[in-house]
Amino acid sequence: MNSMTEPKKLSDVAAVDQDSVQPFPNSRKIFVQGTHAGIQVPMREISLADTPTDFGGETNPPVRVYDTSGPYTDPAVAIDVRKGLPDVRGQWIEARADTERLAGNSSAFTNVRLQDDELAALRFDHQRQPRRALPGKNVSQMHYARQGIITPEMEYIAIRENMSLQQARSLGVLEQQHAGHSFGAAIPDEITPEFVRNEVARGRAIIPANINHPELEPMIIGRNFLVKINGNIGNSALGSSIEEEVAKLTWGTRWGADTIMDLSTGKNIHETREWIIRNSHVPIGTVPIYQALEKVGGIAEDLTWDIFRDTLIEQAEQGVDYFTIHAGVLLRYVPLTAKRVTGIVSRGGSIMAKWCLAHHRENFLYTHFEDICEIMKAYDVSFSLGDGLRPGSIADANDEAQFGELETLGELTKVAWQHDVQTMIEGPGHVPMHLIKENMDKQLRECGEAPFYTLGPLTTDIAPGYDHITSGIGAAMIGWYGCAMLCYVTPKEHLGLPNKADVKEGIITYKIAAHAADLAKGHPGAQLRDNALSKARFEFRWEDQFNLGLDPDTARSYHDETLPKESAKVAHFCSMCGPKFCSMKITQEVRDYAAAQGMAAPKEEVVKLLDVEAEMKAKAREFRAQGSEIYRKV
Amino acid sequence: MNSMTEPKKLSDVAAVDQDSVQPFPNSRKIFVQGTHAGIQVPMREISLADTPTDFGGETNPPVRVYDTSGPYTDPAVAIDVRKGLPDVRGQWIEARADTERLAGNSSAFTNVRLQDDELAALRFDHQRQPRRALPGKNVSQMHYARQGIITPEMEYIAIRENMSLQQARSLGVLEQQHAGHSFGAAIPDEITPEFVRNEVARGRAIIPANINHPELEPMIIGRNFLVKINGNIGNSALGSSIEEEVAKLTWGTRWGADTIMDLSTGKNIHETREWIIRNSHVPIGTVPIYQALEKVGGIAEDLTWDIFRDTLIEQAEQGVDYFTIHAGVLLRYVPLTAKRVTGIVSRGGSIMAKWCLAHHRENFLYTHFEDICEIMKAYDVSFSLGDGLRPGSIADANDEAQFGELETLGELTKVAWQHDVQTMIEGPGHVPMHLIKENMDKQLRECGEAPFYTLGPLTTDIAPGYDHITSGIGAAMIGWYGCAMLCYVTPKEHLGLPNKADVKEGIITYKIAAHAADLAKGHPGAQLRDNALSKARFEFRWEDQFNLGLDPDTARSYHDETLPKESAKVAHFCSMCGPKFCSMKITQEVRDYAAAQGMAAPKEEVVKLLDVEAEMKAKAREFRAQGSEIYRKV
Repeated sequence: MNSMTEPKKLSDVAAVDQDSVQPFPNSRKIFVQGTHAGIQVPMREISLADTPTDFGGETNPPVRVYDTSGPYTDPAVAIDVRKGLPDVRGQWIEARADTERLAGNSSAFTNVRLQDDELAALRFDHQRQPRRALPGKNVSQMHYARQGIITPEMEYIAIRENMSLQQARSLGVLEQQHAGHSFGAAIPDEITPEFVRNEVARGRAIIPANINHPELEPMIIGRNFLVKINGNIGNSALGSSIEEEVAKLTWGTRWGADTIMDLSTGKNIHETREWIIRNSHVPIGTVPIYQALEKVGGIAEDLTWDIFRDTLIEQAEQGVDYFTIHAGVLLRYVPLTAKRVTGIVSRGGSIMAKWCLAHHRENFLYTHFEDICEIMKAYDVSFSLGDGLRPGSIADANDEAQFGELETLGELTKVAWQHDVQTMIEGPGHVPMHLIKENMDKQLRECGEAPFYTLGPLTTDIAPGYDHITSGIGAAMIGWYGCAMLCYVTPKEHLGLPNKADVKEGIITYKIAAHAADLAKGHPGAQLRDNALSKARFEFRWEDQFNLGLDPDTARSYHDETLPKESAKVAHFCSMCGPKFCSMKITQEVRDYAAAQGMAAPKEEVVKLLDVEAEMKAKAREFRAQGSEIYRKV
Repeated sequence: MNSMTEPKKLSDVAAVDQDSVQPFPNSRKIFVQGTHAGIQVPMREISLADTPTDFGGETNPPVRVYDTSGPYTDPAVAIDVRKGLPDVRGQWIEARADTERLAGNSSAFTNVRLQDDELAALRFDHQRQPRRALPGKNVSQMHYARQGIITPEMEYIAIRENMSLQQARSLGVLEQQHAGHSFGAAIPDEITPEFVRNEVARGRAIIPANINHPELEPMIIGRNFLVKINGNIGNSALGSSIEEEVAKLTWGTRWGADTIMDLSTGKNIHETREWIIRNSHVPIGTVPIYQALEKVGGIAEDLTWDIFRDTLIEQAEQGVDYFTIHAGVLLRYVPLTAKRVTGIVSRGGSIMAKWCLAHHRENFLYTHFEDICEIMKAYDVSFSLGDGLRPGSIADANDEAQFGELETLGELTKVAWQHDVQTMIEGPGHVPMHLIKENMDKQLRECGEAPFYTLGPLTTDIAPGYDHITSGIGAAMIGWYGCAMLCYVTPKEHLGLPNKADVKEGIITYKIAAHAADLAKGHPGAQLRDNALSKARFEFRWEDQFNLGLDPDTARSYHDETLPKESAKVAHFCSMCGPKFCSMKITQEVRDYAAAQGMAAPKEEVVKLLDVEAEMKAKAREFRAQGSEIYRKV
């Protein structure tokens, strides 16, 4: 009755996005158990129809696919975004006995926010008490790895990453895949927990997994693993609500986001982030300088190390898994951007550039880099070293400013590794195709093979409204060359804030890029899904074709526009060509005929057939005598 | 009153698609004249606003872009699809005095159709009297080129292809482009008529331009020219009207299709084609075997050389500019496809395979190849040698069947060239990224650098509904490697018939791929449009950013979703970040500041600045004393 005067509390009314909790068609959630009961690795299993009798009638085994959708697609889990997700890692973290639960929050800003009654309507009620490393302890996965410890996170990841290989092997189809060309990656035949440990130890992969984010389903980012994608969400000064941001999280991960970055810059960043993390089963990344800038009223030159440090602690205790830190924007690089067509396009980069110029001092993220490392290792937050000077246009690609910063990021990677802090490196941006590989090669060289994490790159500037595509091209290529994670770009890039449809379009485009890269690198088992889908296509198993695709809903709706009847989904012809012109139908006839005539034989025999004119004529007569109808059972 | 009983004649009621005749925003159609008045090469000129005063206030010259939209976007032309387009080339053809206007049609089938009263309602009324080479004459552009003749078509093309270079040079910005890497292409500094002639003479480029298609605005396909794209249209047994197909033609070319293939397989293919050609300013390609199959009731084994020959003449006299001919599907290759995951997916390929098996004889397109050449040179129809055995799935890429056929296409290319018949080669299909270059390299080698024309290739099979994207990735890459024309794929590929929206989505995706390839190859002047758009973006000239893009309408509408007010289009911040967080605004401040302080200087000076602590402090004080507001005029 009173709803106009008394604002509803979000913690009372927030509901999950219903689109995000629908089961996938013909799919079920399965779990593969690790060495102890707590390790339960989720996968999606898509069941398939039998091959129609005309085509041989065999049974098609179900196909397991990597599942980023989390508990949201698990019918056994009652989702309540007001309460957050179940705890996956809490026991593992506790069992390591190197952390303590704090009595309160260490961040001054957090405490102010918690005491502000005006925020009650927005606040997430079921906050977790923060956890921190015991004094002198380093709780990073890299630190454990370097001590030879295989954590439950590592085993979980090994099972997850090894799934396609294991599946292909158990089906006896591991060889049904092109060999791949990986440009010097070291993808093993089998992803074992020890391999995961070793890759993390040498810095070639990271496991973003803050001890304050126990809801997380562990995943890994590295060139010898499946290529990952990130989706950006976040509100701005111009709009969008907390509930909408949580919906973008659940919707984006449903379609394949491996991590989510919360790039909020508007009001209530702290509260928004709490809602996001507590409801996220994937790692959450942020750019802490955005919030720090809000705290100083948007005046870059008023930023201080103390404010920034408090922001890092605030976010680390909420559970952010990786921080973008623009520590490579050095004072001496800034003037190199003055002659660019598009100057500095990274928000973080331009903030730090402005600060450097205003104070005529070196970037405080650089001068305090080891202080930052101390914070990172107390919570296991990973570095994502930001490319504040990335090119914002084709014209500016691979210039002195960009590559100067990359060299500095290489130095900083080694500093971070001295602290056993997990580190990945952010990359461009806008790069024409022929200059992409130079980026990858230089990054691998300068940064000791630390994972590369690129935005696109966009391969041309002339298609605003389609930058998911201009960048999907570059993303696929750099993924093939060795990039470990691809940051998505939506159709709204450069133009506006993405809505749910844009988020999905961006995610699917980047899943395509990542998978195309996995195929080209020759990731063991990666081609299994392609093969299964193509077989379904050839056999006119329309539903299987839809369901094996990245987006069954869209595939089905496109099909229905042309041939809406249910019967058409079992029809033995495509909607494009109609019944008479279907090449797949004809191929099956060719196949049956070739088999019946013993022609699916070695090449030599075929050549012989060709040589024997009389035999050919006989066969032709025989074929015609049978009425030229080739649907005979072999 | 009587409309139910008396069907309306299409030639009375057909109207142009209104969406296709809207002028582009801030654009005008201009013409560059060649050596005589008849050569008038159309271009689109996009006018730009001045740079805002804050950013320097300079004038921005208009940008000319390659224009495939034809007379439809020329306000000076009164479009009437019932009458067809104005004649561009008629005089040139006549002046060569090597052709004759025939008294009637040479095709028996055409004459039957023309006498069929039931087709009156569908028929295009303003048919042209067909023209044919005089006995013994060869009227192909290749034949002229080899005699050293520069035709008006060649000069027209030189002006068209040289436009971006000329523009960049006249603006003094030719150097503002990355050098490119062209994998052995021979892109000259300047595209001259003589260069065009030479490329056509040696078979490295083709000018599809049937003497019965005088409405055509000449264009060229070859690895040393701008990468082209083709859009497929055509009805099927399942639907779509003639008027809709004409609308797809005008709509597809509006957005950038350089050629259109009419793949109709339904009823009234002949009449549909007449409407399409008479209204097309771009080359039209067909697959004659589709219509031939209709003529024998869909029974592949009933196909004969005579029926096929009559179909070629029928279509050649209508004005089809290139024919897909699946002459490389040899009997000995067919069984090699039997073990494939998706067999034969080309419709033409499967028809010919069925015919070969049914008759146990060699493909009649192969055995009659020189007969076909005779027809081609009498009308200047170009070969598009079809890849009937292209892979239909990742699994089948680069296999023995595919490459065997490609080798045969190489042989046939040389046969065609002996007849001075222009020839390009069709290519796949579905190919993982790492196997794409092998296709291009082998094609160049086997086919003597004849232009390659590929469908995609699709780089993964797992995204039905998004195959414009899976294939746009492969298309960009193969374009970079040397492919001359990219056949588009729409989102409906594998699922249904594309509607107008799908046609546009496919075209824009492929324009992106083609342009990304031009940039990577280093085509002179190609980057001018990217630079202009990026400059507009940096300076918040929103309207210019939209108008310079491939699709101004979509860019504008996306922008309006977030910031719908007109005032926002001159706002100095992006809709993504809001006013405080705009990195471009900050960059401009950095730039002004750097200039004011003399910092946009050589690196040495910057390093010196860094060394002098006192100077730094002084500068910082100065900056703060000015209120840290950096919008001062320099």
